[in-house]
Amino acid sequence: MYHIGIDLGGTNIAVGIVTEEGKIVAKISVPTKAERPFEEIFSDMADCIRKLLAQTGLDEGRIGSIGIGTPGCLDTAKGMLIFAGNFKYGTLVNYRELMQKHFDVPVYIGNDANVAALAEAKVGAAKGIKNVVMVTLGTGVGGGIIIDGKIYEGHLSSAGELGHMVLVHGGEACTCGRKGCWEAYASVTALVRQTKEAMRSNPDSIMNQTPMDKVNGRTSFDAARKGDKAALEVVENYREYIADGLASLINILCPEVVVIGGGICKEGDYLLGPINEKMQKRVFGTGLLPERKMTVAQLGNDAGIIGAAFLHA
Amino acid sequence: MYHIGIDLGGTNIAVGIVTEEGKIVAKISVPTKAERPFEEIFSDMADCIRKLLAQTGLDEGRIGSIGIGTPGCLDTAKGMLIFAGNFKYGTLVNYRELMQKHFDVPVYIGNDANVAALAEAKVGAAKGIKNVVMVTLGTGVGGGIIIDGKIYEGHLSSAGELGHMVLVHGGEACTCGRKGCWEAYASVTALVRQTKEAMRSNPDSIMNQTPMDKVNGRTSFDAARKGDKAALEVVENYREYIADGLASLINILCPEVVVIGGGICKEGDYLLGPINEKMQKRVFGTGLLPERKMTVAQLGNDAGIIGAAFLHA
Repeated sequence: MYHIGIDLGGTNIAVGIVTEEGKIVAKISVPTKAERPFEEIFSDMADCIRKLLAQTGLDEGRIGSIGIGTPGCLDTAKGMLIFAGNFKYGTLVNYRELMQKHFDVPVYIGNDANVAALAEAKVGAAKGIKNVVMVTLGTGVGGGIIIDGKIYEGHLSSAGELGHMVLVHGGEACTCGRKGCWEAYASVTALVRQTKEAMRSNPDSIMNQTPMDKVNGRTSFDAARKGDKAALEVVENYREYIADGLASLINILCPEVVVIGGGICKEGDYLLGPINEKMQKRVFGTGLLPERKMTVAQLGNDAGIIGAAFLHA
Repeated sequence: MYHIGIDLGGTNIAVGIVTEEGKIVAKISVPTKAERPFEEIFSDMADCIRKLLAQTGLDEGRIGSIGIGTPGCLDTAKGMLIFAGNFKYGTLVNYRELMQKHFDVPVYIGNDANVAALAEAKVGAAKGIKNVVMVTLGTGVGGGIIIDGKIYEGHLSSAGELGHMVLVHGGEACTCGRKGCWEAYASVTALVRQTKEAMRSNPDSIMNQTPMDKVNGRTSFDAARKGDKAALEVVENYREYIADGLASLINILCPEVVVIGGGICKEGDYLLGPINEKMQKRVFGTGLLPERKMTVAQLGNDAGIIGAAFLHA
């Protein structure tokens, strides 16, 4: 049996046929055009599935389920999107019904960050591990909690908003409306803000060789590696914010493994080594309990498709 | 069938015989004398059980299990205390073996804060609710996470250290060695510190009618109720710290109910009303999702005995 995994993003829809073992046998991507009504978006998704079936020569009867990973707040039992800022018509949309108009198979939905965590726990960086927390450092800070090999959704399918734990009481404004959320310090968006602030206060820093409007997550790291003092401080503070939040999550959830995802992980040990060191010193029972495990996500962008295909399990 | 619940504290040991429905039929309490070797402490526990059996006329064969709630870091699968600062000999002690020298029944152990949460979820303020987070505001901030009606222990039985989530990055020193933990702001110990600080900076405050060494969790609340400005500020900040931490926990775990415990809850709606209001405004999806439920613990000191008696379930 195969399963369809759909990664429904605000920009693109990625659709894949996935084996029971989590291998993608074929995939395709089309623009979401998120301003459209959902009927049209789902019609495109169904077309993608039909194309993939044709391409692989698989009969529709070989598809055991369709899983959809999506941003937003969900009622997964009903297969319903409650709301999502990413889509123009993103309120109270029954994904399951929309998809079952095209295919008569079980349809499951999941929050995109949760779905990525599920993929890593099933076949990625935390393969076969039952209790996993995944944190994705990107535009925001996404999170997923896997307990006993399943997504922990909590009430109203609303658990796992790990980026919206406060790290700095009364601190920077967060997109969610609160102040001081972890996301407002540990996301790449926050790193860019911190980098720009440091550039302004340190006109001599080589970071200023980059025009303000070209600053990205790499700017401070590149300059820090060359020994730039202001950049070193930005990088060290950024590590500090990440480590402090991770230690909090471990004290709350104590998973077997914490998986870190997002493009910033390409900075490798230069970012993650010191984070791990700081984090180990701050978790409860440090020195008395074994070190906690932190690892880097392996599945990259495929995590969305693969995790969605595992939603049935 | 009955179950024995033991609440092993640093000061007292409370032992009870509990029905399947969570009713205590008899209980007894003796001093722990925590400086003693564990053999002696367990010998006293066993004597308590024998006394209760004699008192109730129950035969030993009617006892299905013995559960022990204890401070410290545990390996619950092995029935072993890893370490606890509360006991002089508190490292690597096999509670199960020690107890089974006296009674040949299954013995379960649990962290005291987790056990209290279990009691509230089984027969207390969150009776019959499957996903519950309990937060106890006391000397520290204790926590327990109940998922699917069971204690969520995480790896190394170390989950649920909710007080050791950072709320103020780089803030007040915490007993755990970190800086800025929620416990360092939301515990009654923290409230007393905040009260004393306000008394020093506001010599005109009526709080100063209380001698410094008599200040407790009620000092600021009593003065605030009389309209004392400095006290009102202490109380408002304290509510703020609690609400901000609760909103973080809800964003992470989204339980069906959050149960608040600890003596400070006697301040009632004056404390908890504004906390609930603030918290509702800060949770993710506020205004789009239903209000989250917050309630006050019902079982008081009996939660330790009752929860321990449910550890077998």
